[in-house]
Amino acid sequence: VAESGARRIRWVADNMMLLGAIAGRFTDEQPFAGKTIGVSIHLEPKTAALLEVLDRGGAQVIATGNLGTTQDDVVVALNESGIRAIGRRDDDPRAHADNLDRVAAEELDLILDNGADLVARRPDVRIIGGTEETTSGANRLRDDLAGHVRFPVIVINDSPLKSIVENQHGVGQSVMESFQRITNLMLPGLRTCVFGYGWCGRGIAQYASRLGARVVVVEPDPIKALEAVMDGFEVREPQDAVDGAKLIVTATGARGVVGPGLVAAIASGAILANAGHFDTEIDVPALDAAAQRREELADGVERLEFAGGHWVRLLTGGRMVNLGGPSPKGNSIEAMDLGFSLQALSLERIATRAGELTVGPQAVPDDINRSLAAMLVAARMAG
Amino acid sequence: VAESGARRIRWVADNMMLLGAIAGRFTDEQPFAGKTIGVSIHLEPKTAALLEVLDRGGAQVIATGNLGTTQDDVVVALNESGIRAIGRRDDDPRAHADNLDRVAAEELDLILDNGADLVARRPDVRIIGGTEETTSGANRLRDDLAGHVRFPVIVINDSPLKSIVENQHGVGQSVMESFQRITNLMLPGLRTCVFGYGWCGRGIAQYASRLGARVVVVEPDPIKALEAVMDGFEVREPQDAVDGAKLIVTATGARGVVGPGLVAAIASGAILANAGHFDTEIDVPALDAAAQRREELADGVERLEFAGGHWVRLLTGGRMVNLGGPSPKGNSIEAMDLGFSLQALSLERIATRAGELTVGPQAVPDDINRSLAAMLVAARMAG
Amino acid sequence: VAESGARRIRWVADNMMLLGAIAGRFTDEQPFAGKTIGVSIHLEPKTAALLEVLDRGGAQVIATGNLGTTQDDVVVALNESGIRAIGRRDDDPRAHADNLDRVAAEELDLILDNGADLVARRPDVRIIGGTEETTSGANRLRDDLAGHVRFPVIVINDSPLKSIVENQHGVGQSVMESFQRITNLMLPGLRTCVFGYGWCGRGIAQYASRLGARVVVVEPDPIKALEAVMDGFEVREPQDAVDGAKLIVTATGARGVVGPGLVAAIASGAILANAGHFDTEIDVPALDAAAQRREELADGVERLEFAGGHWVRLLTGGRMVNLGGPSPKGNSIEAMDLGFSLQALSLERIATRAGELTVGPQAVPDDINRSLAAMLVAARMAG
Amino acid sequence: VAESGARRIRWVADNMMLLGAIAGRFTDEQPFAGKTIGVSIHLEPKTAALLEVLDRGGAQVIATGNLGTTQDDVVVALNESGIRAIGRRDDDPRAHADNLDRVAAEELDLILDNGADLVARRPDVRIIGGTEETTSGANRLRDDLAGHVRFPVIVINDSPLKSIVENQHGVGQSVMESFQRITNLMLPGLRTCVFGYGWCGRGIAQYASRLGARVVVVEPDPIKALEAVMDGFEVREPQDAVDGAKLIVTATGARGVVGPGLVAAIASGAILANAGHFDTEIDVPALDAAAQRREELADGVERLEFAGGHWVRLLTGGRMVNLGGPSPKGNSIEAMDLGFSLQALSLERIATRAGELTVGPQAVPDDINRSLAAMLVAARMAG
Repeated sequence: VAESGARRIRWVADNMMLLGAIAGRFTDEQPFAGKTIGVSIHLEPKTAALLEVLDRGGAQVIATGNLGTTQDDVVVALNESGIRAIGRRDDDPRAHADNLDRVAAEELDLILDNGADLVARRPDVRIIGGTEETTSGANRLRDDLAGHVRFPVIVINDSPLKSIVENQHGVGQSVMESFQRITNLMLPGLRTCVFGYGWCGRGIAQYASRLGARVVVVEPDPIKALEAVMDGFEVREPQDAVDGAKLIVTATGARGVVGPGLVAAIASGAILANAGHFDTEIDVPALDAAAQRREELADGVERLEFAGGHWVRLLTGGRMVNLGGPSPKGNSIEAMDLGFSLQALSLERIATRAGELTVGPQAVPDDINRSLAAMLVAARMAG
Repeated sequence: VAESGARRIRWVADNMMLLGAIAGRFTDEQPFAGKTIGVSIHLEPKTAALLEVLDRGGAQVIATGNLGTTQDDVVVALNESGIRAIGRRDDDPRAHADNLDRVAAEELDLILDNGADLVARRPDVRIIGGTEETTSGANRLRDDLAGHVRFPVIVINDSPLKSIVENQHGVGQSVMESFQRITNLMLPGLRTCVFGYGWCGRGIAQYASRLGARVVVVEPDPIKALEAVMDGFEVREPQDAVDGAKLIVTATGARGVVGPGLVAAIASGAILANAGHFDTEIDVPALDAAAQRREELADGVERLEFAGGHWVRLLTGGRMVNLGGPSPKGNSIEAMDLGFSLQALSLERIATRAGELTVGPQAVPDDINRSLAAMLVAARMAG
Repeated sequence: VAESGARRIRWVADNMMLLGAIAGRFTDEQPFAGKTIGVSIHLEPKTAALLEVLDRGGAQVIATGNLGTTQDDVVVALNESGIRAIGRRDDDPRAHADNLDRVAAEELDLILDNGADLVARRPDVRIIGGTEETTSGANRLRDDLAGHVRFPVIVINDSPLKSIVENQHGVGQSVMESFQRITNLMLPGLRTCVFGYGWCGRGIAQYASRLGARVVVVEPDPIKALEAVMDGFEVREPQDAVDGAKLIVTATGARGVVGPGLVAAIASGAILANAGHFDTEIDVPALDAAAQRREELADGVERLEFAGGHWVRLLTGGRMVNLGGPSPKGNSIEAMDLGFSLQALSLERIATRAGELTVGPQAVPDDINRSLAAMLVAARMAG
Repeated sequence: VAESGARRIRWVADNMMLLGAIAGRFTDEQPFAGKTIGVSIHLEPKTAALLEVLDRGGAQVIATGNLGTTQDDVVVALNESGIRAIGRRDDDPRAHADNLDRVAAEELDLILDNGADLVARRPDVRIIGGTEETTSGANRLRDDLAGHVRFPVIVINDSPLKSIVENQHGVGQSVMESFQRITNLMLPGLRTCVFGYGWCGRGIAQYASRLGARVVVVEPDPIKALEAVMDGFEVREPQDAVDGAKLIVTATGARGVVGPGLVAAIASGAILANAGHFDTEIDVPALDAAAQRREELADGVERLEFAGGHWVRLLTGGRMVNLGGPSPKGNSIEAMDLGFSLQALSLERIATRAGELTVGPQAVPDDINRSLAAMLVAARMAG
């Protein structure tokens, strides 16, 4: 198992050009020498590559994962390479909470947080500062924890680089790849309905269209809808948009976008997939309640049959389609390389120049955005 | 002449769907009843269509143009239809200033301004408010005239709708159409270098690429450069980018982007065109000074020959390429329809609900942006 | 006038890279020394550039044009440069026939023919051979004149290079440029119906789509229709396809594709344009008979109004849309450069190696196709 | 195992719209009633779906696979559903030959052949006729077996439908999907070199470019190279084309396109993949001989290191990249649906109207091509 985890981490790390360059510099400069970083993040090969870079920068790292997504072989590999990683895929919520408590109980200097799970445990702790991966974690810092946090927290997800590289192109590419990988179906001529024309939705619409699909977009915000029109897409109201669609993808950030009411207007056999972060965009519990039968057709594909024989197909149970089915990979290595480089440089900034930062949640410093953008441009143009 | 002007205005007005709908409502509601609007704007068929809509809304309109761009047949046609328009193409700067003075001297209730030319004449005047078409006019209001302006001025150019429809797609489409119209050359395989990846530059790069050109982008801002890379473009430094280019287009907003130093690196026969608002992006005076010979090859194309026989071709003298050469049209009717609908609804807002606005320059109210976006989506999807 | 014609010829010739290279070689090798070439072809700047190349290769050239398309300034310029060109734009059919007779009456060695107009006059003449530009001319040689023609005739239009460069890309590019030039309308979101998915139709559909239009294709041949589907287009029957279309373009090679019956299903205001060689694809006489009113809206745009107020707009009277409206240019210079280079090298082959050819109509020798393809690849990649 | 095979066949069959419609008709009309069909073809879910359709048409089917590609769970499932399928993945060449002999020894009425393996065993047999899947099988019929074959053999691979749907779009889509699935790398900005611009090569270049890669094409045939240029691609000689490339894909049909000489010009870390039918386009034995070290980096990725530390990465050992790595799927279901529908209708034609056919290898009858094209158009447009 460890060998597998180590090999998978190696493949990822060897293809992370930005993080690789940062690792080289960190090895020389040791920005985290003598410091302990507490980490809460999905534990899989791409995050493991990040943890290794922090380790090479002199940090003591202690990390745990999110509920149900920890990859056990990666945990083994991390521990064998001297990075403390705790938790297992099968941990129940209580065991998971214990893991978080164990990390929070350490003498931490820095925190790399996800959903504010660590900060919420010890908001008043005296640490230098931290990073927060998600927007929902940032909201929690601004709402529930407002006034409690006495140190700077750099919010990674708000960086414009992430919107472009990870949300638009990373998700657009991986959703269409996943559709092909899971279903083995053909894209040219495929009538495809995309809900949402935010960063993710426009990436999905764009990649689908370029692969030959005939795309219709649903977007309630009129300015985003106009962008979709100018980009050459048909834009319709939901009931019209799903009429004739054979693939329906949600990427709205909203709940219950596709429920039993709309599904009744969808032709039998159509395929539903969710690309949004939360698995509530397609209202699977409501569909399940309405369905007379639910069966698995293939790895990652279920058939839901309703009264009268009407049926649709659901990919990966309504969870993020690019994380399920056979041999899932998620976003591309380079997309995550950028996001984790934002993490690495933001943690370095906190460790070495915290005095320049304000207290509480804040954006990635602009010079970090700019220098990483320039590094990625150079990496893609090199050769 | 008047017949020609009237027919040209009619063609434009009949194809302005948004302004047409607004005109219908204005005819019923008479938002400008009893009010006089002073106007300073290019006088050509598209603006004339706007003035007619204000007239139908009950306004007394008195308008003059910009220096050197007034189309005489349009002025005649406007006056024949009862709208006071003054000025001629051949007016010298003094006559042009007199025209502006004449408009400013009227008892105005509202001002539709361009470059703050009218407001600067009477900043302390008691009017209800005005609109400003340009960003440079808005800057003048915020700098030179700060504190003097006692009424609201809605700045049209800052609307996000304009960036999308007029700057990206309008300019992208019309620049590539103009290149073809002026040169009659083929796009597939044409090595094309685009300076700038702002709204205009990305439109030009996108339209050129989709027509088959091989595009390289120059963009000093690393985040915009990264967007260009993710959109599939090659991104290079200026000297590398022009190497082998046969068409070079500037859209940067900066001065002297292409001057004698860079031109020396450009292969003989390459074509230079400017798509930026100001004619200073290609440093024509410096090129002219360096050239041993300058001759017209075709309508809108000049040949500049330098020492050693090196030569390049310059389109429309370095002025906006989509406004020159044979039968120029500028941006598409629908792109201008949107911009002028922003004008019409902003003037209506000032005329009828000025109390809701603050004093001084301000953005187009969001509800106007949203309602026009929805109207344009509906217009493009209708049929 | 002559100055204008000469300048226009010069612009074209300077941008014809292939013909320019051929002209250089012909000047050295004089393949036509002592030979007279009789020519029947449109007389405009691009063909004039071809005639100059034949002249530089040592030929005595005597040329006349087609009915109604001769550009008088080009004729003057040709004669001033020593090439005998006869005919005027205003020639009536009888005068035009006289012109053809005059050319045919010369002591010709070679013929460059268009529609077999010259060969039909003297099929039994003793000449070395000739070229035929058009497919309809080739058909005439194979049908009416079968058995009469005792010399080789190379048929230019059948070359695969022409299909790719001139028919697909040349027409696709110029039709969309012409639509913009004539109407000044916006392409993104424009519902566009293309009749025909042969070489021209697929070029038009492709360029329209890439410029942002939403394209539907009509194509009765199922295999071509399948290609359209795989290329990402919607394919429908005529009545469905025109439903909601705002632009309808014909490129079928068939007659009466759009007549009164179909026009009744087209929304008022839609624009009709023909891109096919013959002006019979849109049945203008039948539309005219059905119309209650026909008026010109703009240069190249007419309004046809039918009973009940239904109306459509017709571009360039149903003739090839890329040859009408303001400042028309036709196909790009490089597209015609290729076609005329096929002419030049085919005439050279006949002049110098007629013994290798068979009698009667035949394809362009494969080595000529291949060498010109390689030259054009090199020209587009150079820089 | 059988359950797995049956489920995989079911997934495929349920998504084969054309074959599904044909199956319905065959069930009614029983075109193969009383006839035995001997089959030699890869035994995997897609071919199994074809065999089921023949079975439903009344045929006795006896089938064997190709060497090393038989999927055992599919064989089990076929036999359980009453179709005789023989052979196993682990069969050695001798066992495989025995399988073919067993099929050939039956009292066959019709043959569905692959590489002429069955026909070569009994060319003089009295059967009604057969189909041949491959071009290489067709060549064998025309060369080695010329004069021996006394019955009609319809050659499937020559159908123009296959070129469009399976070779261009099927391969283009699946190669790019496979690259992502195997490597998890990002496409925007990826410098990609495609060898070959035949049907497969142009599909790969097109799909790569649309996904954001910067593509350069190598194609020795000048007419195909010109098509690549007109389609917007850079075209270069091999040494220039691989300079800076990070992904190199072969699709030429030729041997040894990428060998040690060229690899020396490729930057370290570049990825090599073959999309051609034979695994000889990348000369893996020669690379292996030149390499100092060869190790697996990930499932489907090997690292080859040469003297001086130069190294490249090879996907799926140089075999067809869309058939290897984790969870491979091959061409899309719909692409194969078309190809197998050509098989089914061709076999029906032979079974029911053999008198209309000539003896020996011949093209798919045009009416079959046309009717299947129309069916596929309708299927993609339905909804």
